[in-house]
Amino acid sequence: MNTVLAIDIGGTFTKIGVVDKKGEILGSKVFGTRSKKPFANFLKELVLNINELIALVGTDNKPIAIGIGAPNANSLTGNIENPPNLNWGKETPIAAEISKTYNLPVYIANDANASALGELEFGLGQGMRNFVVLTLGTGLGSGIIVNGELLLGEHAQAGEIGHVNVDPHGRYCNCGLQGCLETYASVTGIKRTVFELISEMREDSPLRSISFEDLTGEDIAKAAIEGDALALRAFDLTAEILGRKMADTVAHLDPEAFILAGGLSKAGDILLKPVKDNMEKNLFVAYKGKVKVYLSNAPRNAAILGPAALAWKHVS
Amino acid sequence: MNTVLAIDIGGTFTKIGVVDKKGEILGSKVFGTRSKKPFANFLKELVLNINELIALVGTDNKPIAIGIGAPNANSLTGNIENPPNLNWGKETPIAAEISKTYNLPVYIANDANASALGELEFGLGQGMRNFVVLTLGTGLGSGIIVNGELLLGEHAQAGEIGHVNVDPHGRYCNCGLQGCLETYASVTGIKRTVFELISEMREDSPLRSISFEDLTGEDIAKAAIEGDALALRAFDLTAEILGRKMADTVAHLDPEAFILAGGLSKAGDILLKPVKDNMEKNLFVAYKGKVKVYLSNAPRNAAILGPAALAWKHVS
Repeated sequence: MNTVLAIDIGGTFTKIGVVDKKGEILGSKVFGTRSKKPFANFLKELVLNINELIALVGTDNKPIAIGIGAPNANSLTGNIENPPNLNWGKETPIAAEISKTYNLPVYIANDANASALGELEFGLGQGMRNFVVLTLGTGLGSGIIVNGELLLGEHAQAGEIGHVNVDPHGRYCNCGLQGCLETYASVTGIKRTVFELISEMREDSPLRSISFEDLTGEDIAKAAIEGDALALRAFDLTAEILGRKMADTVAHLDPEAFILAGGLSKAGDILLKPVKDNMEKNLFVAYKGKVKVYLSNAPRNAAILGPAALAWKHVS
Repeated sequence: MNTVLAIDIGGTFTKIGVVDKKGEILGSKVFGTRSKKPFANFLKELVLNINELIALVGTDNKPIAIGIGAPNANSLTGNIENPPNLNWGKETPIAAEISKTYNLPVYIANDANASALGELEFGLGQGMRNFVVLTLGTGLGSGIIVNGELLLGEHAQAGEIGHVNVDPHGRYCNCGLQGCLETYASVTGIKRTVFELISEMREDSPLRSISFEDLTGEDIAKAAIEGDALALRAFDLTAEILGRKMADTVAHLDPEAFILAGGLSKAGDILLKPVKDNMEKNLFVAYKGKVKVYLSNAPRNAAILGPAALAWKHVS
């Protein structure tokens, strides 16, 4: 059976998989991106993992193309350009490197753009023509579908909603700007909010015993579900900012829905409900009551469905 | 010769014109919208003016279709819906009324969407595929061109950038929200800024002798050009906010350019230069140095070229 090899590069983990035309994942692997090491180290580990995976799924299921989703990937050049959360330098020619190694066509897209294609082809976006995917992970990525197609923009760089401004005097962002949305509404963002609240609040909290490096989104979600006041406040503040900025996105695009994906979306209703309320409160009258917000129902390894959809889009 | 009748309804003035296929305006008229009176009064005055104009251009140049640009016009329903700057109620069936009167096909669009079509067809947008028009008038309207087509969105209401949020605790907007961009970056917005500055600053200024009702954008521009510190500060504050929010728009759409139109854009470089600087400063790294900002070079009565382009799009 024909398959594609899908690669999703995140700030923390890289996921690879072999995927058929219907979005069935025949095999997958995950490894740490170790984003502070040089690109050469990453490439070596990626190739090792791909070789193992291809051996695993067998010669009957050989990939005919490769799709890559990565932060700040430029679909026109095949390069990863100035990624704020990867220490790989200005331009990383990842498509060329992978294509050379495997002698297959390689298609590359911004990770969140790939996610949006994955939702459109295999996920909640099936049948929708206008929606926005927000991936709330290490950073905040976004992919915009307009009239059933990925919005690319003039330089194929559309959809960097993580870098809209929340507060000109706000938190410093890895991108060099100040007050970017992803410094508030992402796993890293809610961690920063937790630490701000630890500095402000008096209440006991299990989160006070965890270092910033060790703290995970799951820790915060677990504490919130157990009723921890500090964690709940952190989700409320995150949702307030995210909901307000989603209303701004609606004022640009008038979408049918948002699909929230990535680590922070796993928190479920603790995030979803206040996000919906805050978006609705801030919507311009023409949009009120019209825009839906979903949590991506994709399983954890489904991040590779985005790059898979990207590859299938080109070879089918 | 075949022509179309174009109607541009603004919060302050309504402009009508008879326009040929090349964008030549064969005749035009302007009258006060008197937005606080009921719609019936407006309709009566509109029909009177149209009849005079059609008589003026002669039976050789009879319109074969009508295009209307109006605030909060819905191209799907033909209605004007909840316009914050017109006191006409929830739904005004303007397309149906005009079609009934003249027995011609009527096409309607949000005024700023129509402007974007006008720039695309007859103006600075010729040859561009991705750009954003911001009309800085009584309010702030916007029209977004993506891949050479007007961005409509799921409910044909895309492009209400005037209602993105600048400050959740900011100025009250006619739309019911607080802190909307148009309360800062529009003719009305800069008037509000002038009055805020009068309350704060000590410097003499010719603007101190003008009431809010009487103050015009031209007064402020004239004072700024003559070096008035208060007026200059008002333009700087306006540009700071507008430039910052334009960077947010870029982070959604990755356009080639912005085209600034409407009353406030007539101020020229006093507005353009700081807007460009502030946008550039706030751009995410992927966009820096790539996005142009133009002032619409359309003559004052060119507002009707938008609705004209809309009508021609359908009948040609």
